[in-house]
Amino acid sequence: MLSQVVELIEKNNDFAITTHIKPDGDGVGSSLGLCWLLRSLGKNAEVIVRGDVPPSYASLPGAEEIRDVSELNGNYDAVFVIECSDIDRPGIAGLEKVFTVNIDHHATSEHFGSINWIDSTASAVGEMIYNLCKAVGGRITKEIAECVYMALVTDTGSFHFPNTSDRTLKVASELIKAGAKPSKIGEAVYYNYPWSRIELMRQVLSTVRRDESGRIAMMRQTLEMRENAEAIDGDNNGFVNIPLAAREIKAAVYMREVAPNKYRASLRSKGDINVARVAEKFGGGGHKNAAGLGVEGDWDELERDIVAALAEAIKASSE
Amino acid sequence: MLSQVVELIEKNNDFAITTHIKPDGDGVGSSLGLCWLLRSLGKNAEVIVRGDVPPSYASLPGAEEIRDVSELNGNYDAVFVIECSDIDRPGIAGLEKVFTVNIDHHATSEHFGSINWIDSTASAVGEMIYNLCKAVGGRITKEIAECVYMALVTDTGSFHFPNTSDRTLKVASELIKAGAKPSKIGEAVYYNYPWSRIELMRQVLSTVRRDESGRIAMMRQTLEMRENAEAIDGDNNGFVNIPLAAREIKAAVYMREVAPNKYRASLRSKGDINVARVAEKFGGGGHKNAAGLGVEGDWDELERDIVAALAEAIKASSE
Repeated sequence: MLSQVVELIEKNNDFAITTHIKPDGDGVGSSLGLCWLLRSLGKNAEVIVRGDVPPSYASLPGAEEIRDVSELNGNYDAVFVIECSDIDRPGIAGLEKVFTVNIDHHATSEHFGSINWIDSTASAVGEMIYNLCKAVGGRITKEIAECVYMALVTDTGSFHFPNTSDRTLKVASELIKAGAKPSKIGEAVYYNYPWSRIELMRQVLSTVRRDESGRIAMMRQTLEMRENAEAIDGDNNGFVNIPLAAREIKAAVYMREVAPNKYRASLRSKGDINVARVAEKFGGGGHKNAAGLGVEGDWDELERDIVAALAEAIKASSE
Repeated sequence: MLSQVVELIEKNNDFAITTHIKPDGDGVGSSLGLCWLLRSLGKNAEVIVRGDVPPSYASLPGAEEIRDVSELNGNYDAVFVIECSDIDRPGIAGLEKVFTVNIDHHATSEHFGSINWIDSTASAVGEMIYNLCKAVGGRITKEIAECVYMALVTDTGSFHFPNTSDRTLKVASELIKAGAKPSKIGEAVYYNYPWSRIELMRQVLSTVRRDESGRIAMMRQTLEMRENAEAIDGDNNGFVNIPLAAREIKAAVYMREVAPNKYRASLRSKGDINVARVAEKFGGGGHKNAAGLGVEGDWDELERDIVAALAEAIKASSE
C-alpha cells in the first residue's frame, strides 16, 4: 500500500533499489527515478542491478552509478524491488532475507515483499513513482522527471499501447514541465542502436513472407545472419512488429535459430487474437497480443505448425 | 486572433473547412475536429478537400462525408483554411473570393486570410482546435476528441518530436478522458498500410549502405522495385528514418527513381545538422532535420554529390 511505503520512507534512511535482470525502460527509469526522489528527501539510496544496463538507458541521470551486483552486500533499512513478479527476478542473492518493498503494476505479482504496493491500473511503475513523489510531498526534480518519463515512454510504446490512460499523459505533461525532454528521451530509445541492427534488419526482412490466407506473416533469422551483422542482444527489438504495419496481416511469427535445429519464436497479433494460447501449445507463454516460445526440430515443419495454430487463433477471434 | 474566430462563429451559421491537398493527420484531424465542434454548437459545417483522404485517416468519424472538390460550390458565411501556407495550397478555385479564416501553427504563414489565427507555439493545429473549443464554451465530444488526437499524434511523431510540449500532453490527456483511444488511433496510423509497403521495404532496405565515414546512410528505390511491390503513394512513409536508428548515423539520404535519370531525394539528420541548406544547394528545401529535392543525371554521381554535401553539413555542425 502507498501509505505503508510513505511511512517506511519517512522513518528510515538507507535504501537500495533493484529491478529484474535485462531491465527495460520502466525497470531502469523507475529505479533511478525513485533513487533521485529518496536522495532529494535527504536519504541514502543507490540502484543495484545484476548485469549491464542496456545502452538505451545509459544516458539517464544516475545510470553511470548503477552497481552490478549478484549478491546483496550493503546495509540497507529496506530494498525496493521494481517490476518483478517474484523475489528471484532480480537475480540477486540475499534479497529474500531483508526487508523488501515490492512495487509493481502487474496484477500477477506474487506479493513476495514485506510491503507490497501493486497498482495494475498504472501504465508503468513510473506512474506509481510519480504518485509516490506527490504522496511524500517531494518535488519532481529534472532528474526524477527524465527517468520517470523514460519509464512511461517505453512501457506504453510511445503512448499508444492500450495501457495509455489520461492519467499517463497527465503525468507525462507534468514531467515535461519539470524538465523532461521528449525528443531527447525518444532519441535515446529509438535512435541509439548500433549499425548492426540495420544490417540484421536487412537480412531478416529479406525473408518476410505471407501464408496462403495472406493474414499471417513469417520472418526468419539464421545464426549466420546474426554473425554476418555482428549483431548484439536487442538489435532485433521490434522486428516482429514490422509486417503488422500491413492491415491485411492479423498475426506474425518471427523465428530465430539459436542453435542448430533450435529456435525461439516471437508471436504478435492484432485485436482479440490470442497468441498467448498459441504459445502455450508449444510450451511458451506471454500476453494476448505478444507471446514467445522455444522449439526444436525441422524449421519448415515447426513454422508450418505455428502458422496453422495462428490460423486457428484467428478463426476463433472476431478479426 | 482567437477572439475574432470566436466572434465569427457566434455570429454566423454556415461554414466550410478545408486543408492542403495530400492532407496529413493534422490537416484531416483538425478539419474534422473543427467540423464536429461547429456542429455541436448548432452550426452547419462540412469538410471539403481536393483529392482523396489517405487511408490512415479514413476511419475518423466524419471522414466518409468529406467532399472532394476542386471548385468552391457552396454558400458559406466563411471558409476555415487549416494548416496552409497560402490560399493556393488547398487547390480549390474560388477560395480567394470568399471570407476565409486562416488557422495555422507555422510561423511562415502568409496571413492570406480575412482572419489569421497563427500560433507557432502549438505542436499541431489540433492543439489550437482544442483551445478554440474551450474558448467558445464547447464540450469536447468523443468525435472531436478522436479527430484532434489524430492531429496531435501525427504532427508530433507519437509525442516525441521536439514540438511536443507539456501543453500537448495535457490536451492529449483531456482528449482521452473525452473518449479518444490511443491504441485505436495508433493502429489506424501505423498498422494500416497495404502489404505492398512490406514488399517495398524489403527491396529498398536491401540497398542500405554507409559512406566511408560511417556517419551517412544511403538507400535507393528503383522504378522496378515500386512496380514489383505494386506499391502506392505513401507506402514508403518513414523509410528514410530507418537507418537513423543507428547511433553512428548522423544523416541519411533516400533516393527514389521517378523517371529514367530523374530522382527525388529525402534527407534526414540528427541534432543541429542542417539538411535544409543541403537541399537548397540542389534546388530543394525543407526543415533543419528533414528536407527534400529533385535532381536529374547519373545516379551514382548525384548520390556522391549529395553525400559530400551532407558530410559538409555534419562538419559545420556540433555533432
